[in-house]
Amino acid sequence: MGEKGDEGKPRAWERVSSEQLADYGIFRVRRDRARSPRDGSEHDFHVAESPDGVAVVALTEDRRLVLVEQFRHPFREVTLELPSGIVDEGESPAEAAARELREETGFEGGEAEVIGCIRLNPSWATSRVHVAVVRGAARTAEKDEDAGEETRVRLVPADRAREMVLKGEIDAGAAVCALALWMWNRERRGMEDG
Amino acid sequence: MGEKGDEGKPRAWERVSSEQLADYGIFRVRRDRARSPRDGSEHDFHVAESPDGVAVVALTEDRRLVLVEQFRHPFREVTLELPSGIVDEGESPAEAAARELREETGFEGGEAEVIGCIRLNPSWATSRVHVAVVRGAARTAEKDEDAGEETRVRLVPADRAREMVLKGEIDAGAAVCALALWMWNRERRGMEDG
Repeated sequence: MGEKGDEGKPRAWERVSSEQLADYGIFRVRRDRARSPRDGSEHDFHVAESPDGVAVVALTEDRRLVLVEQFRHPFREVTLELPSGIVDEGESPAEAAARELREETGFEGGEAEVIGCIRLNPSWATSRVHVAVVRGAARTAEKDEDAGEETRVRLVPADRAREMVLKGEIDAGAAVCALALWMWNRERRGMEDG
Repeated sequence: MGEKGDEGKPRAWERVSSEQLADYGIFRVRRDRARSPRDGSEHDFHVAESPDGVAVVALTEDRRLVLVEQFRHPFREVTLELPSGIVDEGESPAEAAARELREETGFEGGEAEVIGCIRLNPSWATSRVHVAVVRGAARTAEKDEDAGEETRVRLVPADRAREMVLKGEIDAGAAVCALALWMWNRERRGMEDG
């Protein structure tokens, strides 16, 4: 009972230097040298830099969720995730959401509503993922995949999403965060329908 | 109405070669060359490899959540997150949870319960984060920080966590995923108390 937190907000580190080390296409690596506010000692911090992304909670009229299965090279396994991708230069997160949904799944819907933004791994990466909701999604076209992609669209009842996360069937960070933001937003608004 | 998914699970890519390119300490980079199952063309995929981590939902007897503020170099900003860290070699996720909680915050509690595991960014990283819940947490010691760390412990009513995520006050991927798993598990179990 009556536990207390700490006083005093952590101080910023002074950056002494910053250097681009490598460009791997999908991410780059920089090294910051920075001075500890505690004792003045200098330390190196490696950071993976990547452009902003978007993850899309897309709902059909009959309240199913549009999911995407694809082979993921880090794990050499097929994962089940939300439609997602990179926000292109000059594009808004909402525009990127509509485009990625169309390209990855062939689905289109109403205007994308951006409901939040997640920093996937602040420990060593700049990855940010905007979360968008698209309602009234329906298949209007074929998928537009390049040779590096082979996806399978799966539709599941939206009410099953929470259970799929708890069972580990959906376990990708962006997907779980996006589903949480979507569900908690609905609860806050007192919405039942999307 | 009546939208349909696709037939046929995505096929695995045959890996032609795999090479370690760099070791940045907190993560390493490998490059896989793999053959598309669609057209046989070969492509390179860069992957950031890192050890498993753990994020801890720690609750005090008076139902507050133990949070940690710290300076994060990727954004050069102070973030508000759950206690978290790396699972050391030979350690279980539950043991790592108890240790990280103690080292980062000075809090200890009941046995850590591991309730799930998230893959933070399957697009290009192997990062996995185990999610653990520790109940009955109380401050038993001083924090055990090295010169590279300066954290501030904050206690907030557990019932406020959802709102803090919706407001963007908590936006780190591991923290949001861990809070979602914790809350959804409680709802499924019909628990009110932790």
